[in-house]
Order: sequence, then structure tokens, then C-alpha cells
Amino acid sequence: MRAHLDRDMERLKKDILTMGAMVEKAIFNAIDALVTRNIGLAEEVIASDYDIDMQEIEVEEDCLKILALYQPVAGDLRYIVSILKVNNDLERMGDLAGHIANRAGVLSKLDTIGMPENFDKLVNLVKGMVRDSLDALVHQDSELALKIIGTDDQVDELHMQIYRELRDRMRQEKGIIDRAFYTISVCRHLERIADYATNISEDIYFTATGEIIRHMDEAKSGRGDN
Amino acid sequence: MRAHLDRDMERLKKDILTMGAMVEKAIFNAIDALVTRNIGLAEEVIASDYDIDMQEIEVEEDCLKILALYQPVAGDLRYIVSILKVNNDLERMGDLAGHIANRAGVLSKLDTIGMPENFDKLVNLVKGMVRDSLDALVHQDSELALKIIGTDDQVDELHMQIYRELRDRMRQEKGIIDRAFYTISVCRHLERIADYATNISEDIYFTATGEIIRHMDEAKSGRGDN
Repeated sequence: MRAHLDRDMERLKKDILTMGAMVEKAIFNAIDALVTRNIGLAEEVIASDYDIDMQEIEVEEDCLKILALYQPVAGDLRYIVSILKVNNDLERMGDLAGHIANRAGVLSKLDTIGMPENFDKLVNLVKGMVRDSLDALVHQDSELALKIIGTDDQVDELHMQIYRELRDRMRQEKGIIDRAFYTISVCRHLERIADYATNISEDIYFTATGEIIRHMDEAKSGRGDN
Repeated sequence: MRAHLDRDMERLKKDILTMGAMVEKAIFNAIDALVTRNIGLAEEVIASDYDIDMQEIEVEEDCLKILALYQPVAGDLRYIVSILKVNNDLERMGDLAGHIANRAGVLSKLDTIGMPENFDKLVNLVKGMVRDSLDALVHQDSELALKIIGTDDQVDELHMQIYRELRDRMRQEKGIIDRAFYTISVCRHLERIADYATNISEDIYFTATGEIIRHMDEAKSGRGDN
């Protein structure tokens, strides 16, 4: 029985990592589509959302099957529950990639207003958080999870700076209001992707240590949230 | 054993409903704080987020305990997994209530620019969805869940109309850009609360019928999302 459980747990791990890789690819491609104004790539990201949704359902069904079949306890149980939650978060990160791709498609058809000053910095931070959270998941690495959680404040700060920059540009030039809005919207989606990477890291930390560090950021409720 | 399971399942149901009631109250109060420009009430909502977070942890621990202790299968198992997910969604709805309260606090200190034309309609729809989703959860009412899912499109439509109205006002009067932004931000939070009510309804529908209707709205990816 234990051998069967181990085998199915291995498969589950593989499936959630496939899910993670699909979502990571969607996010990275959505950003590329935006920066290179590539409408075809944006459409590809939007289309890939269906596959991500199907993968989410598969992972969830796997979890339910393992719970019903082997009735795991203790560490195995916590791990499966954390996979259920991470799976949910990954699917929503995939949705956000779709939203960014959607905005990339719209912006590509309009004259460019350029990217905000700190956009590259924001992108690099968020990409790093996404990649690290998947690494932390594979290796159940609570140290790496903590590092990711600590990065979220920097993302919020950059996000606010970008918002202020674009708001000031809008004030000077009302012809760019829509495009500035779409760009702010993209950055907000990036910031939310970072939030999900943080949620995932909090789950990993909890599964690995039994300690809850969720909600440590509640004091800043609404910060970075424009 | 079954009697014990039933007893603990009853307690779990009560706990998730308490969680729902706390979140509903936070959302309703946040909207009231905004409309009546009541900074004290806004601060109350922000403070209540801690209790909501504690309740979330309690519900999750209850779920894990039941899974470990009784190793339920079939319907019971699906129900508990759905509670885990609903619990997560409710906590995030609570965060959004906090964000709205935060904006209410800021807006209350500035001269009013009034509420957008369709704001009351949006608020009533979203309030109805939140209340109905909790009712559907208590009664495992798949018909009501379907109705909620159907309402989400109207919310997206109203949200877009409000965005356009405020954007046009910004174009005419750049002195109101910040306040218009904050108001758009509040409406976006309401729209996301409706999204979560929809997610919850999809989970209820699945638990009740075994049919997956999640992701039926993927074709509109990015719509209503400005």
C-alpha cells in the first residue's frame, strides 16, 4: 500500500510541476508579447489558458483520488492539502497571464507610450518570485519560501512608483489616459502574480515547518493596491 | 464513528458559516464606510481582518483534523475539499473588504467627486451574490449556485460602464484623477468579490452535482478587467 501511495504521490508531484511550468511559460510569454508588441504571441497565451484549466482539474482529481484511496495522515495529508491550494493559486496566476496578454494585444494596436521607468525591475522581480516559488515547491525549501515572502514588499513599492509615474504623465497628456491605464493594469496583474507566489510560499513554509506565517502582511492592508 | 464524524461535520459547517458571516459583514461595512464617508467604520473593517484570518486558520485546521481522524470518502471528502477552497476564497474576499475600507478612508478625507452613475446597481448585485453564495453553501443549493454564476456577466458589464464614465470625467478634469482612480479601484475590488462569489458557487455546484462548470467563462478572458 505504501509503495502505491509513494508512486501516486510522485505522479502528483510531477503533475503539479507540469502545471507550474505551464503557468510560468504563460506569464513569461505574456510579458514578452507586451514588450515586443507581438499580437500572435499574446493570442497564444490566451489560448493556452484552456490547457492550464484542464491541468488544474487533473491535479485536483489526483488529490481527491489519493485522499480517498490511501487516506493519508500527518505529513502526507498536509502535503496534499497544500497541493490543492497551490494548484488553485497557479490556475489564477494563469488567468492573470491571460489578462496581461489581453492588454498586450490591445496596446500593440496603439501607438506606444513606452514602458514606465521601473517596469524591467518589476518584471525581473516577479519572474524571479514565480521561478523560485516553483523551486521551493519541488524541494519543499522553507528558506527559499521565506526569501520569496520577503521580496513581496519590494514588488509593492515598485508597483506604487510605476503607478505614480503614469498618473503624473496622464495629468500632463490626457491623450494617453487609456494606454496609461492599460499599462497600470498590466503592472497590477504582475503585482497580483507576485501575491500568489507569496501565497504559495506561505503554504510551502507551513507544510515544511508546521508554522503559520500567512497573514503577516495584514498590517499593510491595501498598501500597494491602487 | 459515523456519529462522531457527523458531529464534527456539523461543527465544520457552523464554522465556515461563521467565517462567511464575518466576511459578509466586512464587505457590507466597507461599502457603508465608503458611501457615508465614515472613517471610523473603515478602520473597524480593517481591524476585523485579523479575526477573519484567525477564523480561516481554525476552519482549515478543522478540515485537516476531520480528514486525519475519520478519513472520509466520496461525498464527505468532496465536501471537505470544497470547504477548504471556499474558506480560502472567503479569506481573500475579506482582504478585498479591507482594501475597499482603506480606499474609503482615503476618499473620506478628500472633497467628494460623488459616486458613478451605476455604483448602486453594482453594489446591490455584488451584495446579492455574496449573500446568495453563502445561502447556496448552507443548503448545498446547486440551482442558486448556477444563478450566481449567471450574474457575474452583469457585474463585469456594470464595472466596464463605471470605468468608462470615470475615465471620461478624468479627461475633462485632471484635478480629480486620484479620486477617480480610487473609485475605480473600489469598483474593481467589488468586481473581484463577485468573482470569488462565482468561484464559490462553482465549487458548490461541483460538490452537489459532480459536474465541473469552472472555467466556462474563459472565453471572455480579460473582459471587464481594466
